[in-house]
Amino acid sequence: MKLYFAPGACSFVPHTLLEAAGEPFEPALVKLHKGENYSDDYKALNPRSQVPVLVDGGQVITQIVAIVNHLNDRFPQLELIPREPLARTRMLETLAWMNNTVHPTFTHIFLPHKFAESEAAKAELKAFNTHLYRGWMGELEALVEKAGRTGRPYLAGDRFGPLDPYAVTLARWGTIAGIDPAGFPATWELIGRIATLPCVARAIQRERLQLNLYQSA
Amino acid sequence: MKLYFAPGACSFVPHTLLEAAGEPFEPALVKLHKGENYSDDYKALNPRSQVPVLVDGGQVITQIVAIVNHLNDRFPQLELIPREPLARTRMLETLAWMNNTVHPTFTHIFLPHKFAESEAAKAELKAFNTHLYRGWMGELEALVEKAGRTGRPYLAGDRFGPLDPYAVTLARWGTIAGIDPAGFPATWELIGRIATLPCVARAIQRERLQLNLYQSA
Repeated sequence: MKLYFAPGACSFVPHTLLEAAGEPFEPALVKLHKGENYSDDYKALNPRSQVPVLVDGGQVITQIVAIVNHLNDRFPQLELIPREPLARTRMLETLAWMNNTVHPTFTHIFLPHKFAESEAAKAELKAFNTHLYRGWMGELEALVEKAGRTGRPYLAGDRFGPLDPYAVTLARWGTIAGIDPAGFPATWELIGRIATLPCVARAIQRERLQLNLYQSA
Repeated sequence: MKLYFAPGACSFVPHTLLEAAGEPFEPALVKLHKGENYSDDYKALNPRSQVPVLVDGGQVITQIVAIVNHLNDRFPQLELIPREPLARTRMLETLAWMNNTVHPTFTHIFLPHKFAESEAAKAELKAFNTHLYRGWMGELEALVEKAGRTGRPYLAGDRFGPLDPYAVTLARWGTIAGIDPAGFPATWELIGRIATLPCVARAIQRERLQLNLYQSA
């Protein structure tokens, strides 16, 4: 299997899951800041120019939700998607929210040109969506607190799964957006624990990630 | 089971799937234009103030992806999520794209105040995202054409599934955004066929939907 990833992007999610599986895979670095995702070669692979892309045999798979499903089929022992029906529904509910709400909100902050052209509109998008993002970090904090209260060490239950590295990615993006981690102690306690898992530590090392990039104003 | 839906919203997806299941359910109309989704009662049900919400016994389930998973568990005979692993991955890939890309692009057109405050920025968001939306309609058209070429009557294969009513919803939104259906013949041929399925026809009738709202300029 080959994973196309970019440091700090949401490709961190399948990156850590592949590391958790423990089978060899080929990590392929895509330099977004150099526009490599818009090269002809990359667009032939993924016309949407996004990471992650997972290539498994002849299959090219995009979208976190689909890649998670595929890795769950390939590595059933990891139970990346819980087997118990309601737990599976709850995991997918949070995964979808991260993927269709929190994640695109950050895109407005980090890549506002994807939604508007003028400098004025882009500046407004950044400010407005930073405010929204702070709200989502509060919702994430509540989810982590709830997991803690119900004795779950990870977001979806007893096992490390896709929600955990996604939370790392989203909270790290929050620090880039100027959101102080101090306001979200349960989230950052979870992140501290997750970061020490060997699979996550290896992905952090390969991507050369600093998790907290917050700088007080 | 009880489904909270709004006419023409993406709650059309579970609405048609519940009709397909053929078991009695309680449809609960939420008037978004009257702000009923921001009432205290509704926020107690879903703090994110969105539709759809599916209530099954004591469980309150949000997010299309999670609701589809739940309905797939409840009505396995419908095979809403294909059983063959690769077909399942492909269905989820398109469902995620509809849900995290196409759908939020329309939100920028229809509800730009969710992303910016000033009239200038909102007008720019509408125009810019209408352009993007036209591109997504082209991608959807290509997916429908590919299904046709490979002999699949529906988007995910031989069976009606969540992608089909989502395509109806997204293409209908396109006509609201001023995108001429004439440019997307395969999509509208599919929509014409889907609309005659009894389960879809019942949902269209209950929501009092006109599928094509395009008005030439």
